[in-house]
Amino acid sequence: MFVTNQWYVIAYARDIGPEPFSRTVCGKRILVYRKQDGSVTAMRDACPHRLLPLSMGIKEGDNIRCRYHGLVLDADGRAVEMPIKSDPVNRSICAAKYPVVERYQFIWVWIGEPAKADPALVPDYWMCEDPGWVFDGGSYHVRCNYQLLVDNLMDLTHETYVHEGSIGQPELMQSPITSRVEGDRVIVERWMHDVPPAPAYRTSPDQENVDRWQICHFLPPSSVIIDVGVAPVSEGWSLENHPVRSFVIDAITPETETTSWYYWGAARGVDIGNAERTARTKMLQGKVFAEDIAVLEAQQQSIEDNPDLKLRAFNIDAGGVRSRTIIRKMAQRDGAAAAMDASDAEQELA
Amino acid sequence: MFVTNQWYVIAYARDIGPEPFSRTVCGKRILVYRKQDGSVTAMRDACPHRLLPLSMGIKEGDNIRCRYHGLVLDADGRAVEMPIKSDPVNRSICAAKYPVVERYQFIWVWIGEPAKADPALVPDYWMCEDPGWVFDGGSYHVRCNYQLLVDNLMDLTHETYVHEGSIGQPELMQSPITSRVEGDRVIVERWMHDVPPAPAYRTSPDQENVDRWQICHFLPPSSVIIDVGVAPVSEGWSLENHPVRSFVIDAITPETETTSWYYWGAARGVDIGNAERTARTKMLQGKVFAEDIAVLEAQQQSIEDNPDLKLRAFNIDAGGVRSRTIIRKMAQRDGAAAAMDASDAEQELA
Amino acid sequence: MFVTNQWYVIAYARDIGPEPFSRTVCGKRILVYRKQDGSVTAMRDACPHRLLPLSMGIKEGDNIRCRYHGLVLDADGRAVEMPIKSDPVNRSICAAKYPVVERYQFIWVWIGEPAKADPALVPDYWMCEDPGWVFDGGSYHVRCNYQLLVDNLMDLTHETYVHEGSIGQPELMQSPITSRVEGDRVIVERWMHDVPPAPAYRTSPDQENVDRWQICHFLPPSSVIIDVGVAPVSEGWSLENHPVRSFVIDAITPETETTSWYYWGAARGVDIGNAERTARTKMLQGKVFAEDIAVLEAQQQSIEDNPDLKLRAFNIDAGGVRSRTIIRKMAQRDGAAAAMDASDAEQELA
Repeated sequence: MFVTNQWYVIAYARDIGPEPFSRTVCGKRILVYRKQDGSVTAMRDACPHRLLPLSMGIKEGDNIRCRYHGLVLDADGRAVEMPIKSDPVNRSICAAKYPVVERYQFIWVWIGEPAKADPALVPDYWMCEDPGWVFDGGSYHVRCNYQLLVDNLMDLTHETYVHEGSIGQPELMQSPITSRVEGDRVIVERWMHDVPPAPAYRTSPDQENVDRWQICHFLPPSSVIIDVGVAPVSEGWSLENHPVRSFVIDAITPETETTSWYYWGAARGVDIGNAERTARTKMLQGKVFAEDIAVLEAQQQSIEDNPDLKLRAFNIDAGGVRSRTIIRKMAQRDGAAAAMDASDAEQELA
Repeated sequence: MFVTNQWYVIAYARDIGPEPFSRTVCGKRILVYRKQDGSVTAMRDACPHRLLPLSMGIKEGDNIRCRYHGLVLDADGRAVEMPIKSDPVNRSICAAKYPVVERYQFIWVWIGEPAKADPALVPDYWMCEDPGWVFDGGSYHVRCNYQLLVDNLMDLTHETYVHEGSIGQPELMQSPITSRVEGDRVIVERWMHDVPPAPAYRTSPDQENVDRWQICHFLPPSSVIIDVGVAPVSEGWSLENHPVRSFVIDAITPETETTSWYYWGAARGVDIGNAERTARTKMLQGKVFAEDIAVLEAQQQSIEDNPDLKLRAFNIDAGGVRSRTIIRKMAQRDGAAAAMDASDAEQELA
Repeated sequence: MFVTNQWYVIAYARDIGPEPFSRTVCGKRILVYRKQDGSVTAMRDACPHRLLPLSMGIKEGDNIRCRYHGLVLDADGRAVEMPIKSDPVNRSICAAKYPVVERYQFIWVWIGEPAKADPALVPDYWMCEDPGWVFDGGSYHVRCNYQLLVDNLMDLTHETYVHEGSIGQPELMQSPITSRVEGDRVIVERWMHDVPPAPAYRTSPDQENVDRWQICHFLPPSSVIIDVGVAPVSEGWSLENHPVRSFVIDAITPETETTSWYYWGAARGVDIGNAERTARTKMLQGKVFAEDIAVLEAQQQSIEDNPDLKLRAFNIDAGGVRSRTIIRKMAQRDGAAAAMDASDAEQELA
């Protein structure tokens, strides 16, 4: 079951033009495309006539004509021309429309009751559109439940082993982690002072030690934004004066119970015109997140293969457990409580 | 569920020789082969001993010996030799025999109660064996329920978009369609006078306009025969004096609930010795029906992906809806009513 | 359902070193590896923390560190280091340990109640470690239920057709077979005197006739050891003075209800230093058993495709039927009776 009455990312804004684009969000296949006025529309990707995916259809201006019998729907999903042009149009024929907003360089669709769709509820990804910041990223299809991705991102201990050789380093394990809840946001943080740079940041063997921080913010239902920084100790730093501060962006969209779309990227507020640096960061992130996916897909498979075993939570999982608690409360709020995995409720911090 | 007490095509007659041939019809895997006297036999394709497919076996005259332990069955599926030759034969050991007839260049098997198998009930494909006609065709495996194929063939409006560039043309949509029921047969027809030839029939840019007709006959449980003609307007035409009349032959065999075998071809009563024309027609048909399959398989997948959505019928679907009504009545007659998709009953002409 | 409180082969001993090795036995994925003292350990292949397969982990001496968060388990599956090294270790955290023994060149794991694991219950494969004998073999993954493999091996009639061209010969069918039960062991035997050599043993067209015997021993829950010999008639023979006696070794491990691991090989007590002969035998066996697998996988598929049909037993199946009876009794003994395929109970010798 999925948490409804929420905005979920369906695509990067840059990928949506007039051509039909189709993706499954929370079990529903949804069609999106950009209208001639530049706005984006979203509707159920099944012709109301014989269910052929509308995404196989023919765009005619802002309308889409079904490839099977030629029923034409407008950008709101309402029939405007019957297969036989001269037949009177039955305006009750329509594909369900989904509220959609374009914000923070993403296209978001509202899953739940359309009347409750409030653009103000889109999770705050300000750094993705602030003119003083630059943002870029990619996306991966992952064969795991979206909550495993949230667990992974709200957990600062896995880097040592999963990302050994890239961003992991043993010192990560020696630094204290704290976690707290602020409203419906969960925050996990770790500060490391005067540690060697992780392999991915190392440029020479005798490199100066660095200061490093990681502050993970869970934004329901399934976003994680990580405030990170790595700077030479000699430079001195604070969050306010952040020469190397950046944000890791993670928007996770449930596709099915066991698959997800993972939109990831990074935003920084310094050196923003440096396209080469932006590309390098994206390439590093792509490599690091692929390491996570290998683990996450094996974990999902193992959960399915071992129905008698339960996930167990340690202290280090506080961030994930608290995020799951918020997800569960939201699901209860919209009546999906009974459908949540009962085993979640039993996860206690050990 | 499938309509039983019916004849279904299992193969082209030309493909059945003494070698075992196996295909699943209405969920049952059936073995057919030709006996030395030229007749064809059909039996359940599972050895009554340990269920190895008999089609893996060894033909010995008209008998078949199982490849596993050597049990020999005769052409009626009855044991005639035990694995140990000297053991007395238990004649109660047998593979279920299926009534079979060879007619109209096809092999038909009877699915249902054998006692009710009457060769007179084979759908009338006279044009496939009339000596004044020539018939040829192919077959496709299609990942969709057989009723979607019937819908497709009894619907004369999809050609414009699905077959754009081959047999489709915009004029199709401007000509009235009529449909009627005659006994257990459904007929849909369209006559077009003085229209440009469709792309597939165009030989030069300034070609003369044509007259064109399409008369679809649904023959239960799952055959569609389409009487078609395209002739230069100057020639004048009528069904009786048919210089260019031909029949599109469509025999559809349910394999599983979501897969079918589609035997298609064309028969004509003119120029019947022209093998090059026969081959050209078959190649065109193969191309056109492949266009249908792309749509039909996407439709089947969409039906499975969207269990909360229903097929909706417009006026143009009258032929398909009436055919489904006949199929449903037949299913009720043989007691399978409850198993029919309840949503069918709710399909009304809009 | 599987028979529990039994030893099952999980691997050849030669394949187990310090590196993690994982295989599913009776539905449970199990990790095995060799400790520094040379002994072998086995535990559930899922980290007790977040279920990532431990086999993806990092070996550290005899311990294994989970690749996800770094939890360290010792060779008994008990936590010895938490992800954060300084955290106190909760010793209740553990992966279930499986009793394991190394014997007869195989690694055996105990599926069932650990307290009942008695190494004396390992099936007797003495010829695989007797210093006067040489043993070698391979393994195959087979998509069939393990009982079909037992049936196959306890049945001496299938060779004629399945192994036509290798070890099969028509004379097999003319020799009487006897079967008997001795304790929980089933024995099927056939003696052939003065018959032509089977194709695989033929070296020239005018080769002398041979004596040949086959004595199959079923050892519960799923081993079959076949005492075989083929010798020129002129040499004379008896089991006691066995110039050419060898044993075909078959250890079958259920993986899932419909898949198995098949460990096969041969042991002989003559010419034991002849590595070339050992390799030739293994190659022949690999070929012959691949012929069985083609049949067994088709049989499994047919059983699934024909849920309305039942396996039927003839006199020749006495060995398999008696073996199934013993398997069923063992399953009843450990409470799994209800889960056994009810159709088995109805298999009677015809």
